[in-house]
Amino acid sequence: MFDPRDPHYQQKVRASFGKQTLMATLDASLHSIEPGQVEIHAPYNAAFTQQHGFLHAGIVSSLIDSACGYAAFSLMPADAEVLSIEFKVNLLAPAKGQRFIAIGKVKKPGRTITVTEGELYAINGEQQKLVATLTATMMTIIGRDDIKE
Amino acid sequence: MFDPRDPHYQQKVRASFGKQTLMATLDASLHSIEPGQVEIHAPYNAAFTQQHGFLHAGIVSSLIDSACGYAAFSLMPADAEVLSIEFKVNLLAPAKGQRFIAIGKVKKPGRTITVTEGELYAINGEQQKLVATLTATMMTIIGRDDIKE
Amino acid sequence: MFDPRDPHYQQKVRASFGKQTLMATLDASLHSIEPGQVEIHAPYNAAFTQQHGFLHAGIVSSLIDSACGYAAFSLMPADAEVLSIEFKVNLLAPAKGQRFIAIGKVKKPGRTITVTEGELYAINGEQQKLVATLTATMMTIIGRDDIKE
Amino acid sequence: MFDPRDPHYQQKVRASFGKQTLMATLDASLHSIEPGQVEIHAPYNAAFTQQHGFLHAGIVSSLIDSACGYAAFSLMPADAEVLSIEFKVNLLAPAKGQRFIAIGKVKKPGRTITVTEGELYAINGEQQKLVATLTATMMTIIGRDDIKE
Repeated sequence: MFDPRDPHYQQKVRASFGKQTLMATLDASLHSIEPGQVEIHAPYNAAFTQQHGFLHAGIVSSLIDSACGYAAFSLMPADAEVLSIEFKVNLLAPAKGQRFIAIGKVKKPGRTITVTEGELYAINGEQQKLVATLTATMMTIIGRDDIKE
Repeated sequence: MFDPRDPHYQQKVRASFGKQTLMATLDASLHSIEPGQVEIHAPYNAAFTQQHGFLHAGIVSSLIDSACGYAAFSLMPADAEVLSIEFKVNLLAPAKGQRFIAIGKVKKPGRTITVTEGELYAINGEQQKLVATLTATMMTIIGRDDIKE
Repeated sequence: MFDPRDPHYQQKVRASFGKQTLMATLDASLHSIEPGQVEIHAPYNAAFTQQHGFLHAGIVSSLIDSACGYAAFSLMPADAEVLSIEFKVNLLAPAKGQRFIAIGKVKKPGRTITVTEGELYAINGEQQKLVATLTATMMTIIGRDDIKE
Repeated sequence: MFDPRDPHYQQKVRASFGKQTLMATLDASLHSIEPGQVEIHAPYNAAFTQQHGFLHAGIVSSLIDSACGYAAFSLMPADAEVLSIEFKVNLLAPAKGQRFIAIGKVKKPGRTITVTEGELYAINGEQQKLVATLTATMMTIIGRDDIKE
């Protein structure tokens, strides 16, 4: 595990998550915040699907990217912002389920660049199935007013 | 340009797009469908943003992924379905704008695998700015009832 | 772990590895072959470096891609060939060391598409450091004479 | 096209390329250096192939990654170093040919992060075929002695 540089990392992550309107729109919630690891839960919603009724790959990505971004953010200094600079997602199985669990983890923290890895699980009754993996590169941003919250 | 194997490729793409509820939720529209190239337009909507008020990276991906998927689908045989198996997005600039234009193009068609490339432009008044590029691998699916529309 | 469909998967992997002249050129060796997991070792060689004397990112990729390819190949039927269709590598730290260990694992096997994940470790004396991660999509090829061995 | 910040960008790129021993090992040469665009040529060599006799995907990546890295480097300030932080390659066709042309281009330059795109063409007699595309994220490094040349 990692040592957070900001002792208030949980409040910081919760405050930022609260500003991601997409998360509210998806009815997603922050399930847990540990240093370098964040879990987001969201229900299935037919408003966000592709043509076969599965969660759209972009929504799959949204949930994992946010989990990864906040995993990285949890380790950043108090005055920093976080931005995704790129990510890559593998869609392993159709995203069908009653609800979804996205887990984001820091693989390698850095002063400027933090590499993260995440997964999305679909929950059907008692069953949990891995439906996507994502690798994201996050950037620590300090002192740029245009992207201040 | 490419030769579509299905003469009704435009209807096919329109019908499938009409079933992607996410596109309706985003108020996105199919602007043009050519063999191997599709353009999707969508307005800015504050319900789909990240913490700084920019379009969330996952929504950026949704628009480009759909444009790329339908670019690939336009070249597939009449009885085929299309699935994204993976994509990689580079977020070049904050996705802020009044509206967005996603363009998806087939780079290399194939019997099973089609490689596509896409871009998202943000429109601010008269200005058009490239905000993201995406590369997606699409798979032709034939005869799998579980993902039939 | 996975069940290999070809009981002779180890011989099959060894035979194919023996035909990858790049592996011999890099003095790389097959350290272990299990169903869905392959480990390749290689020494540092100043002939394969980038401008700072570290192993070139393309050579880093070569070792992990081969480990991932053979991890996928170990689960394929006896008459199949394997091809990488895409991969993504994250370079976490400079690839400096006396020798390198590449580990490739199947994340999700499939009839046509197998998703794999790999890592490269640099060994310096007693120390082992993760220097790169790679995600690769492998394709099962059957009956294409042009890529037969 | 782009304005190079270092008027001696061509010498800088040539000097760094000269230190990439892998390029010499591959008998690769710098064909052209323009601001934000670099072309590298290399012959086929049976010592660098995979099991079917095609150029190994890692060598394909080496050539394009170097072209992209130097495309980015050509736009960096005089005291900067360049490092690849991640790349993604799509292998569109078997890399068979008498020789290969790698082209790297800057898609979006930045103070810290530069996004590049590259391609590899296989040359067979009069024919030129696109065999791979690559997207790479390059980082500008200033003042880190451990990776100084």
